Amino acid sequence: MRDVAVIGVGMQKWGELWEKSLRDIFVESALLAIEDAGVDKIDSMIIGCMSSGLFVGQEHIGSLLADYLGAAPVPATRVETACASGGAAFRMGFIEVASGLSDIVLVGGVEKMTDVGGDEATYALGTAADQEYEGFNGITFPGLYAMMARRHMHEHGTTREQLAMVAVKNHENGSKNPLAQFPMKITVEQVLNSVMVADPLRILDCSPITDGAAAAILCSLETARKIKSNRLIRVAGSGQATDTIAFHDRDDLTALKSTAVAANMAYRMAGKKPSDIDLAEVHDCFTIAEICITEALGFAERGRGGKFVESGDTRIGGKIPVNASGGLKSKGHPVGATGIAQIIEVVHQLREEAGERQVKGARVGLTQNMGGSGGSAVVHILEAL
Amino acid sequence: MRDVAVIGVGMQKWGELWEKSLRDIFVESALLAIEDAGVDKIDSMIIGCMSSGLFVGQEHIGSLLADYLGAAPVPATRVETACASGGAAFRMGFIEVASGLSDIVLVGGVEKMTDVGGDEATYALGTAADQEYEGFNGITFPGLYAMMARRHMHEHGTTREQLAMVAVKNHENGSKNPLAQFPMKITVEQVLNSVMVADPLRILDCSPITDGAAAAILCSLETARKIKSNRLIRVAGSGQATDTIAFHDRDDLTALKSTAVAANMAYRMAGKKPSDIDLAEVHDCFTIAEICITEALGFAERGRGGKFVESGDTRIGGKIPVNASGGLKSKGHPVGATGIAQIIEVVHQLREEAGERQVKGARVGLTQNMGGSGGSAVVHILEAL
Repeated sequence: MRDVAVIGVGMQKWGELWEKSLRDIFVESALLAIEDAGVDKIDSMIIGCMSSGLFVGQEHIGSLLADYLGAAPVPATRVETACASGGAAFRMGFIEVASGLSDIVLVGGVEKMTDVGGDEATYALGTAADQEYEGFNGITFPGLYAMMARRHMHEHGTTREQLAMVAVKNHENGSKNPLAQFPMKITVEQVLNSVMVADPLRILDCSPITDGAAAAILCSLETARKIKSNRLIRVAGSGQATDTIAFHDRDDLTALKSTAVAANMAYRMAGKKPSDIDLAEVHDCFTIAEICITEALGFAERGRGGKFVESGDTRIGGKIPVNASGGLKSKGHPVGATGIAQIIEVVHQLREEAGERQVKGARVGLTQNMGGSGGSAVVHILEAL
Repeated sequence: MRDVAVIGVGMQKWGELWEKSLRDIFVESALLAIEDAGVDKIDSMIIGCMSSGLFVGQEHIGSLLADYLGAAPVPATRVETACASGGAAFRMGFIEVASGLSDIVLVGGVEKMTDVGGDEATYALGTAADQEYEGFNGITFPGLYAMMARRHMHEHGTTREQLAMVAVKNHENGSKNPLAQFPMKITVEQVLNSVMVADPLRILDCSPITDGAAAAILCSLETARKIKSNRLIRVAGSGQATDTIAFHDRDDLTALKSTAVAANMAYRMAGKKPSDIDLAEVHDCFTIAEICITEALGFAERGRGGKFVESGDTRIGGKIPVNASGGLKSKGHPVGATGIAQIIEVVHQLREEAGERQVKGARVGLTQNMGGSGGSAVVHILEAL
């Protein structure tokens, strides 16, 4: 396998982008990535998107987006692993360049979620769970993660306040990110007094509904060296794994096994261990998720994710800053785009261009993108050369 | 890139499989492929599916199907390029094995289309076209292909009878395929007298709505040689391309540019030309499609696809048998599974196990899978070693 580099990234400010169509926001981000990379052609496109069919009545977005980007007839394929679709697209692009088949691949993610009402959005997101056994019986995603939270509190003594601290930290970071959908700072009190969604999770424990796209350009390290003389970022490790799609089929409701397996694959490929990671962007779709993820990635001991966030170790300036970008919580969560946006933040950090939220001296960054209640997970490790 | 072989294939009889769920039919076909391959583990899964979200309210089928196959925690990703999703899944699996990242990959396709009514199925299939410019203005897929047919008749003198001959030939072939959904033989008169769908296309010009799945096992040629001593099938060429998603944006309505580009990529990789191909499985979603495709693949001269089918050259025993399996027309068209089923037919033919429909002495076979009105196309060339 050839070495692969990320040589360009781009995304717009996320939010309720009612004046723009899915094709518009994707092309906007793709052009930013192409400009950042300084390339004048691409060989192929891979696009992560969870449910353009249910959100905007449009499948076949590979063809649509290659066409509107002016890139046809290059091959263009959509990949989907629910909310981990962006991460899966990045991995497919990585494999395609590593194989030698293509030299320059545009990987992107997009989701246009606010063109439907809240009930329809909740239904569309619910299709990431096991519809026949979970959805048809009435469970929604906040409900699934609420059970995960209750179990973690019961088994490990995690507190309601520790959950809130995840949201407070991520909004603090997001307030320094000009592209974040909800850049306001919040307090623990505000989280605890916000409206209940699924006990114990309140609205400020939940990531929002978002329109947004994100794109990155991958190429062989050999070609990258010809295009750019500095700030080269190598894809050091890639891992992906599955778990039971249904929450009730798991031995352990808080272990996030797919994340642990994917992380081990990525650590092994990169020749790194958790303590080598300088910063991580992880899938905080709900506050409890970030707590469980820090354990599954090996940053915190099993059961101690709540204490880990309370200690301040995951803040910028802490031992291992988590979600310096603001995470899904503050930056927004257009589900198919999230995995690529995580890569974008790590690239900006490793290039030392993250402004006010820069993690000093960052050389190695990790991304963890998750689908459903953990049925899929994708982990990547990037390294500055 | 490493050489890649197809070592196992499997599918069930297609049709209205109301007693089975999407997960059931996929697992059924996957187990047949695993048994045929004689492997006891897989490293990864790639599944083509166009619109499980709209057809059965279930996204995230990578996790679902890995789980129900008992294969979790292996990575599992769904890929989508409308009706070319199966072909795109095969190509992604090919790239993954060729890269060296994985050694044994299960590639599959699935679609469960008959759990919704006809209007809903027409809507779901319409999401493969440009919804904002085509769908919202009322065009359906039979309408798009009817325009393609009218244009071909106008420019090249193709006759209504020649369109019918495609259907007659494919049902003749399908009558010899025990897995075909509609194995009955039909006549030109029956096609011409069948109910009108979109002038000039009648119901017997159209492929059906189908439930079905298909699977294949890819592995490195090196590993294949250890597992099987004979009947090895190598993936000699792979190509994929896009065109404008909207029909009205094309210079030429009958040229199927994405197919021509993808075919040239595959021919170049395989070191083959059209005259080297012993049989082809192509995307006859409507009779006119097969006529245009035989031209785009270089089997017939431009504009002479109608005369080509009339000549008998595309029958079994002809110069280049097309759709010996019965094609989408007779075998059925569960959209995400079709591209993999084309591979299965070519594998059976190259192994000389196609029974009554065997193409004698077949050594090299081609598959062409298409999305939308030609917005995507995927072409593969397989070769018996």
